[in-house]
Amino acid sequence: MQSHLEDLYPTRISPEPVWQERKVPVLYPGYSLPSPLSAEQARQFEEEGFLVLPRIYSEEEVAIFRVEVERLRTDPEIRASEKTILEPQGEAVRSVFAIHRDNPLFSRMASDERIAGVASFLLGGDVYIHQSRLNYKPGFTGKEFYWHSDFETWHAEDGMPDMRAVSCSILLTDNTTYNGPLMLIPGSHRHFIHCVGQTPEHHYQKSLRKQEYGVPDHASLEKLAERYGITEVSAPAGSALFFDCNIMHGSNSNITPFPRTNLFYVYNHTENTVQDSLLTRLPRPDFVAESRNFSALEIRPERFV
Amino acid sequence: MQSHLEDLYPTRISPEPVWQERKVPVLYPGYSLPSPLSAEQARQFEEEGFLVLPRIYSEEEVAIFRVEVERLRTDPEIRASEKTILEPQGEAVRSVFAIHRDNPLFSRMASDERIAGVASFLLGGDVYIHQSRLNYKPGFTGKEFYWHSDFETWHAEDGMPDMRAVSCSILLTDNTTYNGPLMLIPGSHRHFIHCVGQTPEHHYQKSLRKQEYGVPDHASLEKLAERYGITEVSAPAGSALFFDCNIMHGSNSNITPFPRTNLFYVYNHTENTVQDSLLTRLPRPDFVAESRNFSALEIRPERFV
Repeated sequence: MQSHLEDLYPTRISPEPVWQERKVPVLYPGYSLPSPLSAEQARQFEEEGFLVLPRIYSEEEVAIFRVEVERLRTDPEIRASEKTILEPQGEAVRSVFAIHRDNPLFSRMASDERIAGVASFLLGGDVYIHQSRLNYKPGFTGKEFYWHSDFETWHAEDGMPDMRAVSCSILLTDNTTYNGPLMLIPGSHRHFIHCVGQTPEHHYQKSLRKQEYGVPDHASLEKLAERYGITEVSAPAGSALFFDCNIMHGSNSNITPFPRTNLFYVYNHTENTVQDSLLTRLPRPDFVAESRNFSALEIRPERFV
Repeated sequence: MQSHLEDLYPTRISPEPVWQERKVPVLYPGYSLPSPLSAEQARQFEEEGFLVLPRIYSEEEVAIFRVEVERLRTDPEIRASEKTILEPQGEAVRSVFAIHRDNPLFSRMASDERIAGVASFLLGGDVYIHQSRLNYKPGFTGKEFYWHSDFETWHAEDGMPDMRAVSCSILLTDNTTYNGPLMLIPGSHRHFIHCVGQTPEHHYQKSLRKQEYGVPDHASLEKLAERYGITEVSAPAGSALFFDCNIMHGSNSNITPFPRTNLFYVYNHTENTVQDSLLTRLPRPDFVAESRNFSALEIRPERFV
């Protein structure tokens, strides 16, 4: 690790949006043998920046996860925790952070080879969890998440050097086109869009409820959407969605009665650990971005029933 | 017209939600010969409560309509008019009312047999415009419309006696599943869900921006959605969507760059004109609900290019 790493993606500095090309590969092939993905799946992830693996968890496993999610969502202690984020203008729980550390069940899941094995394959080596959370988008009142690149935030606010991280979302409810599913711009992961405006101190407390900084400009979003189109992720409960850390994504609100609940794990390569030297502000708290324990996950097959 | 019409759907009175069955037919067949719809189309409207007629306006016609829409949206006089509704927490124009009276182009469209002929067929006779408007759901910031039955509002706030009205929405931009399309619960038009809570005076000024009264309860919406499912209307610009006045519908927000613009005409049968005697409050203003001129539309073929 270098002590004065060069900032390869200097976002939130220029008064005008800047486009930059990605500097590292999307896929680091040849690492894991046998591959957990087909050649076609690997190619799709590389080109489009995301991949859905349908129903990798059984109905019985999903039922167990949902019971635990419901327990967390209604536990007054969890609700009062600083690691829990509520909906803007509401009291409903939106996210619970650091579930890979605090929750025994979801900690085991983080190491499960069905997801961690895929992350390690995509990133070409040892991985650790940069961030984990449970996302609960309730029925009737679920609000939108505006467009963003996760890497833009993790780079600017956590000091993540480069794009060698992948998110894995485990769907615990069916995701349809109408209950506020994740929307992705496939191909956008190859471009880094500098965001305009500086990051205020303690930004994370507000930004996890409603994004105001690190927001891409309208013209860039129009250009990306015109060029690549928009894909909505529709998949049944038990499916996993992997998406590149730099893909542009967001979601609309959810007025349907059907909640959208998922578990979210960010795998980062152990050679891409966050660097304080890249930050101009205080780092975000440890439950949002791992800043101490970068030891590689021990990946193993887990069974939950 | 009776001076003391019985209130057949006494909504906003009971402290608990009540379900009631529809009292009048959805379709009044046999009126118009030749029918503007196929037997299959008529059956679909009757069973599901809606019907899409793809591309009944040509690209050239849509281009003309869009120029006029853009002119209205940016005209400072229109913007300042009481007939114009802005987005909640924003300055963007959401709706412009009474376009069938105030705008020469959109007045001609109201009488065009491509839409008025269908409305007259569905309702079985002479029709007039109860309400018209231009809806502009902008890209990036378009907000949701919560679930509602239009008839519930028109009955409670305008005094419309029964369900012999149909809405026609003309899509001026492509509607996809991701830019906040209309969501419908097909089959819900056969049930009248009483809403809980009374209507405040001058409710319309707020309700057209954000609905707070006349809102169906969660349990009823869950029951409807479980029983009938949810359908999103995806259709290209130039298409017309007809939907029954009592169908439960709403839409999610739109963070995509793609605006969703439509023209909206409510056709009411001339034997179903609004009755002051059904109201417990002052009626809404005339630009929201026609209260004087109930003369039948002269339906004619219009050409706009």
